[in-house]
Amino acid sequence: MEIGIETARRIIAAAQETGVARGMKPLSVVVLDAGGHPIAFERADGASPGRFEIARGKAYGAVMLGMGGRAQAERAASGPAFMAAINGAFGGKVVPVPGGVLVRGAEGAVIGAVGVTGDTSDNDAEAALAGIAAVGLTGEA
Amino acid sequence: MEIGIETARRIIAAAQETGVARGMKPLSVVVLDAGGHPIAFERADGASPGRFEIARGKAYGAVMLGMGGRAQAERAASGPAFMAAINGAFGGKVVPVPGGVLVRGAEGAVIGAVGVTGDTSDNDAEAALAGIAAVGLTGEA
Amino acid sequence: MEIGIETARRIIAAAQETGVARGMKPLSVVVLDAGGHPIAFERADGASPGRFEIARGKAYGAVMLGMGGRAQAERAASGPAFMAAINGAFGGKVVPVPGGVLVRGAEGAVIGAVGVTGDTSDNDAEAALAGIAAVGLTGEA
Amino acid sequence: MEIGIETARRIIAAAQETGVARGMKPLSVVVLDAGGHPIAFERADGASPGRFEIARGKAYGAVMLGMGGRAQAERAASGPAFMAAINGAFGGKVVPVPGGVLVRGAEGAVIGAVGVTGDTSDNDAEAALAGIAAVGLTGEA
Repeated sequence: MEIGIETARRIIAAAQETGVARGMKPLSVVVLDAGGHPIAFERADGASPGRFEIARGKAYGAVMLGMGGRAQAERAASGPAFMAAINGAFGGKVVPVPGGVLVRGAEGAVIGAVGVTGDTSDNDAEAALAGIAAVGLTGEA
Repeated sequence: MEIGIETARRIIAAAQETGVARGMKPLSVVVLDAGGHPIAFERADGASPGRFEIARGKAYGAVMLGMGGRAQAERAASGPAFMAAINGAFGGKVVPVPGGVLVRGAEGAVIGAVGVTGDTSDNDAEAALAGIAAVGLTGEA
Repeated sequence: MEIGIETARRIIAAAQETGVARGMKPLSVVVLDAGGHPIAFERADGASPGRFEIARGKAYGAVMLGMGGRAQAERAASGPAFMAAINGAFGGKVVPVPGGVLVRGAEGAVIGAVGVTGDTSDNDAEAALAGIAAVGLTGEA
Repeated sequence: MEIGIETARRIIAAAQETGVARGMKPLSVVVLDAGGHPIAFERADGASPGRFEIARGKAYGAVMLGMGGRAQAERAASGPAFMAAINGAFGGKVVPVPGGVLVRGAEGAVIGAVGVTGDTSDNDAEAALAGIAAVGLTGEA
């Protein structure tokens, strides 16, 4: 089971609509596949230019480590040196904070991740979860 | 004048439709702003996973150097060491081949770039130009 | 609305004059465009050689994240792992301290950033704000 | 003997005036010190955003290798692998083409370098030499 472009587009649309509906700041949303590679990305008007790197960093860490951004943030808090080393091992591409959400398929296997950035980390995660739920998949924040 | 997300989405859709209509392989399309930063990206089903880096590399070089991918390719052919060095100066992010197309606004100023990858470089450039033309902007391949 | 070279030169001159008038150490000042790319830079005599990287790092983080250096510093204090990861995502080019100041144009949109380094971070920010005010623009420290 | 900010500013102004007087495209000009670190930089209106990296790459190679861009280009042509390796050793920051010009002081010692980019490499070098001559120093293209 894979996330196709049609599904990725719907995840992004639903995440963006959630952000607008709840009055969040302009969001940027990326969907990565099970290898951590981008399928689709959209940056809302008004967001700062560096949002792709942040959105990808959140989702990339989720896929590569097999845990959502919230779990990564806890790990970073309890063992900062560990997460710093992990980040070094991945060329600086891991951003271990909420807003990176693992996507699981019907059988529970990880099939990708969604990364959202633009508002508070908790709101980012909420928008990502809403996007994933909109296509009938399960998110792990 | 800036490329908003709505315009970027239409550029991508038109480029993808062009690829399908002309029987090209699955395309990946990125739209960058005038600073070389991603606004939107979509990778068609069936494309290989590394397509974001290639699409961005084509469009990024166009923005940073102020010339389309075809001009970059000619430069790379006449002076390989020069283009290799340029790429080093930009952290390896420049892919100097057709398929990276500058986008000019109403007054002729560069407002971004489109990068397409997946088929031959010439077909990639054709799809990018079709995407840009579909929103009434001018592309420079 | 963009910052042209003439405006950038005046921002730098006014920031440097502020530093001299208030007895600050030799300052270095960079002006970046809305994509985080250098328009102009000057390093005062007596400043240490690495000042370009620091000045740019302050201004670059402001543009890419859409927040001034003071806001970045607060974020780094409350969540050190987050800001370290953000820096990794941007290739180590972000210096999240006061002295990186967003520049807003007439309609409030970010049109670039000024980075100042050489004295205390608070004085650096003060000089940057004075430079921006001298050309009738609005700074966000 | 060192290049101060006042001298650097005059070099840049004279190089830019040369470009305008001879109908060159918009130029970007950097002045580096004897350690290869930026003293001053200016990018003319209309130049593409990546010009700082290119200008610095030209001047940086000149300082670090102790030879002008033309000599570097000849070296790159006769031994491409050597120059590629040199570039790797300097983190990709060397751009070995004309337009990087060594600056020698009264006693013949290297005191810095000027890097110009925007037009043809030969015109870039010409503008750099004119800037250096305007302050009574000797350039080595």
